[in-house]
Amino acid sequence: MIIVMKQGATREQLLAVKKRIRELGYKPHVIHGTTRDVIGAVGDERGKAVLQALESMEGVDNVMPILQPYKLASREVCPEPSVIELASGVSIGGERLVVMAGPCSVEGEEQLIATARAVKAAGATVLRGGAFKPRTSPYAFQGLEEEGLKLLDLARRETGLPIVTEVVNPRDVELVARYADILQVGARNVQNFPLLKLLGQQDKPVLLKRGMATTIKEFLMSAEYILAEGNRRVVLCERGIRTFETATRNTLDISAVPVLKEQTHLPVVIDPSHSTGHASLVPSMCYAAVAAGCDGLLVEVHNSPETASCDGPQSLRPAEFAATMDKLRRFAQVAGRQL
Amino acid sequence: MIIVMKQGATREQLLAVKKRIRELGYKPHVIHGTTRDVIGAVGDERGKAVLQALESMEGVDNVMPILQPYKLASREVCPEPSVIELASGVSIGGERLVVMAGPCSVEGEEQLIATARAVKAAGATVLRGGAFKPRTSPYAFQGLEEEGLKLLDLARRETGLPIVTEVVNPRDVELVARYADILQVGARNVQNFPLLKLLGQQDKPVLLKRGMATTIKEFLMSAEYILAEGNRRVVLCERGIRTFETATRNTLDISAVPVLKEQTHLPVVIDPSHSTGHASLVPSMCYAAVAAGCDGLLVEVHNSPETASCDGPQSLRPAEFAATMDKLRRFAQVAGRQL
Amino acid sequence: MIIVMKQGATREQLLAVKKRIRELGYKPHVIHGTTRDVIGAVGDERGKAVLQALESMEGVDNVMPILQPYKLASREVCPEPSVIELASGVSIGGERLVVMAGPCSVEGEEQLIATARAVKAAGATVLRGGAFKPRTSPYAFQGLEEEGLKLLDLARRETGLPIVTEVVNPRDVELVARYADILQVGARNVQNFPLLKLLGQQDKPVLLKRGMATTIKEFLMSAEYILAEGNRRVVLCERGIRTFETATRNTLDISAVPVLKEQTHLPVVIDPSHSTGHASLVPSMCYAAVAAGCDGLLVEVHNSPETASCDGPQSLRPAEFAATMDKLRRFAQVAGRQL
Amino acid sequence: MIIVMKQGATREQLLAVKKRIRELGYKPHVIHGTTRDVIGAVGDERGKAVLQALESMEGVDNVMPILQPYKLASREVCPEPSVIELASGVSIGGERLVVMAGPCSVEGEEQLIATARAVKAAGATVLRGGAFKPRTSPYAFQGLEEEGLKLLDLARRETGLPIVTEVVNPRDVELVARYADILQVGARNVQNFPLLKLLGQQDKPVLLKRGMATTIKEFLMSAEYILAEGNRRVVLCERGIRTFETATRNTLDISAVPVLKEQTHLPVVIDPSHSTGHASLVPSMCYAAVAAGCDGLLVEVHNSPETASCDGPQSLRPAEFAATMDKLRRFAQVAGRQL
Repeated sequence: MIIVMKQGATREQLLAVKKRIRELGYKPHVIHGTTRDVIGAVGDERGKAVLQALESMEGVDNVMPILQPYKLASREVCPEPSVIELASGVSIGGERLVVMAGPCSVEGEEQLIATARAVKAAGATVLRGGAFKPRTSPYAFQGLEEEGLKLLDLARRETGLPIVTEVVNPRDVELVARYADILQVGARNVQNFPLLKLLGQQDKPVLLKRGMATTIKEFLMSAEYILAEGNRRVVLCERGIRTFETATRNTLDISAVPVLKEQTHLPVVIDPSHSTGHASLVPSMCYAAVAAGCDGLLVEVHNSPETASCDGPQSLRPAEFAATMDKLRRFAQVAGRQL
Repeated sequence: MIIVMKQGATREQLLAVKKRIRELGYKPHVIHGTTRDVIGAVGDERGKAVLQALESMEGVDNVMPILQPYKLASREVCPEPSVIELASGVSIGGERLVVMAGPCSVEGEEQLIATARAVKAAGATVLRGGAFKPRTSPYAFQGLEEEGLKLLDLARRETGLPIVTEVVNPRDVELVARYADILQVGARNVQNFPLLKLLGQQDKPVLLKRGMATTIKEFLMSAEYILAEGNRRVVLCERGIRTFETATRNTLDISAVPVLKEQTHLPVVIDPSHSTGHASLVPSMCYAAVAAGCDGLLVEVHNSPETASCDGPQSLRPAEFAATMDKLRRFAQVAGRQL
Repeated sequence: MIIVMKQGATREQLLAVKKRIRELGYKPHVIHGTTRDVIGAVGDERGKAVLQALESMEGVDNVMPILQPYKLASREVCPEPSVIELASGVSIGGERLVVMAGPCSVEGEEQLIATARAVKAAGATVLRGGAFKPRTSPYAFQGLEEEGLKLLDLARRETGLPIVTEVVNPRDVELVARYADILQVGARNVQNFPLLKLLGQQDKPVLLKRGMATTIKEFLMSAEYILAEGNRRVVLCERGIRTFETATRNTLDISAVPVLKEQTHLPVVIDPSHSTGHASLVPSMCYAAVAAGCDGLLVEVHNSPETASCDGPQSLRPAEFAATMDKLRRFAQVAGRQL
Repeated sequence: MIIVMKQGATREQLLAVKKRIRELGYKPHVIHGTTRDVIGAVGDERGKAVLQALESMEGVDNVMPILQPYKLASREVCPEPSVIELASGVSIGGERLVVMAGPCSVEGEEQLIATARAVKAAGATVLRGGAFKPRTSPYAFQGLEEEGLKLLDLARRETGLPIVTEVVNPRDVELVARYADILQVGARNVQNFPLLKLLGQQDKPVLLKRGMATTIKEFLMSAEYILAEGNRRVVLCERGIRTFETATRNTLDISAVPVLKEQTHLPVVIDPSHSTGHASLVPSMCYAAVAAGCDGLLVEVHNSPETASCDGPQSLRPAEFAATMDKLRRFAQVAGRQL
């Protein structure tokens, strides 16, 4: 932590800050600059956030952290990329890319099974589908809930695909964990800490989506919540951030892929559907994501987007998905990966 | 809902869209433009979101909603501003402004009681203080939980001030409701829909904070979740949005005050502490907020910011708060309000 | 400048960085932390930007500036607020607030004179009006150019109000300076450095608007361009920044007022018209701006907004402006200012 | 243009709006909705912006454009992608990708020639290098100006590579056009309309960079300024937009590639250097950009980033650039392009 003193701060103020740093268990180290002094506080990193309050002391201009606040998610603790088992025979983070595909929400048996078969045939390795849907409007379709989970179970038995589905309420974690192979945390819940803690106690991998206004640092701190509870199987998903641009639903932060790869050992997945909001933009974003070095994709596919109860405009039709997968296979190869 | 056809869309495509509009229960009304056609879909507004899926039909360029999606929160349903009772003798939305003040988090009896007495003496009408703290880092102080609620109860008995405190987990709603006069939803939970629904079933007023990337429309839809469950006592709180600017912790969206006043009958409160992140900026933002027409303020005050376990740099000292209140009284008078 | 080394950086890398710091004329000062080292580079602040390139050296994690890069605009160089003469008898930065009002663009004699008289009658002290209009579309009205300047001159003679008008092309600086009392730089030209340099050589005050995505630090660096050329009469104008919110045209960054007041001695003006984009929101933002401590306002007023060739929806009618001024007078008084 | 009336607007208000629409030369077409009326204004699209002022009329809620405001840049006017000749033998927009590489700024003969030879050897087809540098700080290196242009000319003769360089002042357009093959407009000048108009009158291709807060619609309107003056050789460059994320210098809006490809016939180039700000992120963003379907890249390469006078941290070393080009060749092939 670097404490920057104000220009003209008095010697007494400097001494008071040094004293307080020592009281908090750190060692102050002063650099006398040409126009002002700065103090480095040396010591155990874990609890350094308490030093932030020094900003209220007289003569202090500001307090700047110099280290990343996460530990278990960092490359420094775990230098090699983690390979995480998602379900029997399906791992992420290694050579093989994982494509999770399916409808935004489970609407009924026919829709789900038809779509599941189509994505399986095209090469998807995980089936996605929402049973509990966090919707902006209380009047919109909220998901089939447990009935939806049962349909996902049926689709798994029909196709052999493991399933990923969202959980939005801590109360439902156990219920969803009974059905799902992978537990998804949606963008709106990226800082729902009670939910994250509970997921950290489960024996199922977690797909954690970045929030619309979550910095990469905060995103990794949310992963840290799960890791710190003991669950080391966390997969990160970039799904677009909120910006001023309205041509797309959100702005896909593609450079988050190499940034995350530098900072964390956790696998990174891209959602090209929610980030763009338009099916016509999805294929090229799939290609870009794989070229950028991601470990997997989360793609919305619907057998009849015109009648979808949510997110139809961003869903690929089965034939479009299959064509995308074909081209993706070749991009994956250049990226040194397999599909 | 307005459906905009592509330039060059065929007559068959137009007919197919009209047919689908009718199937969904709406009446299509075509305007033939000079370069393309647009279709208005006339009918009951509540379920119009289903029309969005028409964007997947051939020949359709895009689908534009023309109405706001909220009902109970709207001025159209309730043209007069709502006056909401927060506790016996304390109402918000009328002539009298409500100032909620206190520490970011409850840290101990001495800290809380000293601060509570100070804010009471300065003219605050509600005591704020967090017992359950949603923190970015799992290693940061997470709040005293029920012990904190008990201290808040003690402070209420000591000062007579009703208390507002945050609830972060649906599981804790009943517990917090036993102690608190007003239940606060934090920025990170503005779209925690299970929590909102549960709060909609309580007989306590709810202070709903806007999220860092929540549009005003989405903010009102979150209020609608609470209203739709039967709880009509919702107070909205603007607390800064996330932008590119780093000189302040967030950017206080002061124009949200008149925008909300036009669109909703619900009272609007401003949090100048989290929005700016620096105590020195808080007084002028209090004045601006009242001049802009807000119904109340949520201000962080701490008897010793240097030693605060969180958010010290943005907390006013008791004497600063008292001076701010004095000047605020005069601004309130010009704004036609009382403090 | 603080140079943060990577965890595990070698002694040789550290030595190489220290050597390079010395070569660039600074004195390295190492703090050995528990997990990594940081180096403070001590010396003359002016040219420290060259140290940024150290980030390319092996073993370096990142380079963090600790000082603000502006000098002449800073409070450190000039601790007292500057009072700037805008025209004979009209100064800004002192006790008296300056209200600059008038149409977005000069459209014709009748429109301009009628509006000028109305704003004068209501208490405005400067007349605004655009003759050179930077418009997003090449097909939109681009202003009356020199003809517009002549009409502004006429309006000045009719009302006695000094005029502020925009200059967009370095080529036109001399022409505009012949007519205008105050030269305005629009948001789109905040980093048009050739224009800023030229304005720095004029003997007329400059009203510099913040850009839509300009940080406060960059804004002050743009002011520094003008100051460094010798023109010390710079007035800063916050006019809304671009965010995700679409309920307003831009988001008025009201906290920029106290932030600027802490960091610079230059006067600060608020434009409530471009920031909100809707006339109904303008009055409350005028009040908020004055309560927040600004030195003046820039308000669009049009005698017939329905027929305005640009920005009609955000223009006040003369009667609305007069009513706003009346109430503003009382807010100004509480703020310790006069209107 | 769709005019949305307020709920409860009177028949007289509706009639007044219809009358005004007719006066402006459009035909009103009313749709009576269940809760409010909307009016479509049918007629020539070019001048429809004037209808925006109707928002000031009584009874009007808002005015929504339904068409894109650009013409010459649009796919509707020119359905096929444009192939643009940049210099003799070098075209962009066709099968062959164009890689423009070189230092951020021209610093001296040795630096430029060494870098030029290196990028040529690695397969770049255009040399980039700044002679006029728009810098945030007036105290930072501002470029070698004409001396820099002469060095670029020398480098062209040495390597045969055509050169692209920035022009920042309308006054310098002719000077720069005498030396450069391609005239670059920087992000800060994307709405410098006098500069754009002048470039529209040159017989040289223009590389137009998107601004940090420029929407895609505004970006195309800026291109329209150049096109409307007669210069049809415009190349668009996405270089990152400003968001809340600070891990990267800007956020590369990769989905702008397919969005632009749908909306315009103009070629699209990606700048992975300014968007990310860190050399280590550049290679993966080059791959992503090509996979997403861009027509070219603009990459910063410097023979000694540690000593660069600007933007060292984001510059690739020659060997890194060569390795990136090798891998890029294979991604290009999958994308159906050649390098």
